[in-house]
Amino acid sequence: MPILTLDLPQGGYPIRIEAGALKRPEILQAGVAERRRVAIVTNDVVGPLYLAPVLAAFARHDPLVITLPDGEAQKTLSTIDTIVDRLLGAHCDRQTTLIALGGGVVGDITGFTASVYQRGVPFIQIPTTLLAQVDSSVGGKTGVNHVRGKNMIGTFYQPVSVIIDPDTLATLPPRERAAGLAEVIKYGALGDAEFFAWLEAHMASLVALDGASLAFAIERSCRAKAAVVMADEREAGVRALLNFGHTFGHAIETGAGYGNWLHGEAVGVGMLMAADLSVRLGLLAPPAAARLQALVAAAGLPTVPPPLSAASFLELMAVDKKAQGGRIRFVLLHGLGSAEVTADVPMPALSATLARFGIS
Amino acid sequence: MPILTLDLPQGGYPIRIEAGALKRPEILQAGVAERRRVAIVTNDVVGPLYLAPVLAAFARHDPLVITLPDGEAQKTLSTIDTIVDRLLGAHCDRQTTLIALGGGVVGDITGFTASVYQRGVPFIQIPTTLLAQVDSSVGGKTGVNHVRGKNMIGTFYQPVSVIIDPDTLATLPPRERAAGLAEVIKYGALGDAEFFAWLEAHMASLVALDGASLAFAIERSCRAKAAVVMADEREAGVRALLNFGHTFGHAIETGAGYGNWLHGEAVGVGMLMAADLSVRLGLLAPPAAARLQALVAAAGLPTVPPPLSAASFLELMAVDKKAQGGRIRFVLLHGLGSAEVTADVPMPALSATLARFGIS
Repeated sequence: MPILTLDLPQGGYPIRIEAGALKRPEILQAGVAERRRVAIVTNDVVGPLYLAPVLAAFARHDPLVITLPDGEAQKTLSTIDTIVDRLLGAHCDRQTTLIALGGGVVGDITGFTASVYQRGVPFIQIPTTLLAQVDSSVGGKTGVNHVRGKNMIGTFYQPVSVIIDPDTLATLPPRERAAGLAEVIKYGALGDAEFFAWLEAHMASLVALDGASLAFAIERSCRAKAAVVMADEREAGVRALLNFGHTFGHAIETGAGYGNWLHGEAVGVGMLMAADLSVRLGLLAPPAAARLQALVAAAGLPTVPPPLSAASFLELMAVDKKAQGGRIRFVLLHGLGSAEVTADVPMPALSATLARFGIS
Repeated sequence: MPILTLDLPQGGYPIRIEAGALKRPEILQAGVAERRRVAIVTNDVVGPLYLAPVLAAFARHDPLVITLPDGEAQKTLSTIDTIVDRLLGAHCDRQTTLIALGGGVVGDITGFTASVYQRGVPFIQIPTTLLAQVDSSVGGKTGVNHVRGKNMIGTFYQPVSVIIDPDTLATLPPRERAAGLAEVIKYGALGDAEFFAWLEAHMASLVALDGASLAFAIERSCRAKAAVVMADEREAGVRALLNFGHTFGHAIETGAGYGNWLHGEAVGVGMLMAADLSVRLGLLAPPAAARLQALVAAAGLPTVPPPLSAASFLELMAVDKKAQGGRIRFVLLHGLGSAEVTADVPMPALSATLARFGIS
């Protein structure tokens, strides 16, 4: 199985994709110096399933285990304070390596803590959900939510390695698997027409957890993510394309209340709304939008947003981090496999898209 | 007056030292692009004195003003949450420049907020206390305190510029002026024997707020700080020397309760304790320690710590960020103007130093 490398000016790191990696101590231990302390952050769903082998691999590193409750509601500054309290209470010093064992929430929280604990300690990502494996564990975005908006407090802070074991997806609830597939579809839609067509042909295999199909989709997604991050770590340009579906999606997530909609579910509907807007602006052919709609549905994802007023939806989009000078920025499609960022969207077209999805 | 430059691989920034700078809009505006928003963070003591000219200089930048209560007790994650709430409520986007107008507390809080707000926005330091002008505003250390230790949550995040107006020291309470002088003395003691001798000759002028003496001391201190930061931004080596007096000092500050002892006051006593320990280990001649003691006293600083038990003092030192693998690290003097970092301090010597200062 492949080891990808994400190279950046300040140093690169490996992304190892390996079925069974969690059962191989030598893979887990790579990059942690002898006699250095480790602190494993996980949650009460993932811990009972996968903590034991990780804990065993680090038995000689005086491991501290911090188990959070499951869920997006944990992504707050208050949780950061709690983790710091545990780390300080256990005398974890600046050489301690934090290990994120879990999905995107655990990864974002752990990465953010690593970036601010004693002004920065190393951390390793061991993502156990599909969404984290194909997206959030790669690229160094960390953060927590604020009641006024998602991921509004965070850092760009790269892990020292990412270890992906696709075997962990066997225990993933179907709803979370579907949420991860939304981000996989995203890579095809915004930049890889060939991968999009492959996904249309193999969506049934992915939903059925076929090992070879999953491994291919994870690797292709990680390659796409790594290429974009290497070109633009701080999202000054091309990285913004990865927000396809996210301007609408973040409004859905926040508007529905954290934790009610999974991030990937919101992104799935967000992509359909962005495609609809692209069609209205004459950028995308209607059949292409229909193919995207069919693929999102085939992944088992919702295709309509929760009931929200247009006024609150627009307000939620305006506080999105991608807004600049009060203007909302959108990622729009020119075709399946081609996207652009623009703030130049006429309000009538946007209102029509919202209305088409029941938001008025 | 001089403009120093702090050069780093990711880009440098100017440190401008100029009496009357706060009254010159063209100096304040430098580095903020037209039409970009600014948010000024200050406190309820500094704001009434110096906000007006800064606000006027940025009148065309739709300035948001965030006024915190004065004091070290504000350095918490809860304050960060409050500032983020204000920024989001005012729709401040990722192009907003934060401006820290105040002392070290305002600078540390504002810098940390800038480093995490929407994963990073630019910020400018306008330090108005001597301590902030000679130390905390330069070098990019940001952070807040945790109940278990000072500055335990923070980042390395550089400002886009530092603007120092020594005229602001005219309104500084004598106790804070003395606290700033502790850090000035530190630069002489750890690396600049000539400056140390100059300080012995000019301490009375500094305490009397002589303009030329203050300007010289600020510039020499900023040059020393900038040189060390350029050599070692992330404190992997030589930057640790700047913690002279801080291992003992942080224990004093935390043990006395945040806000009861000023940081500089604690560092002043901390330097005397470190010098005493250096003498006990045969590194420093007793007359040199006596000269340091005399200079700290001449600055109007306390020379004995608050009443604390040895057990709690040692526990507080062990959670210091400079601790590694459970071992407390000290900056010790070989002479006035020469220092080293070591974790190799026998407990009997440390206990003797604590006892000498009334801690047993």
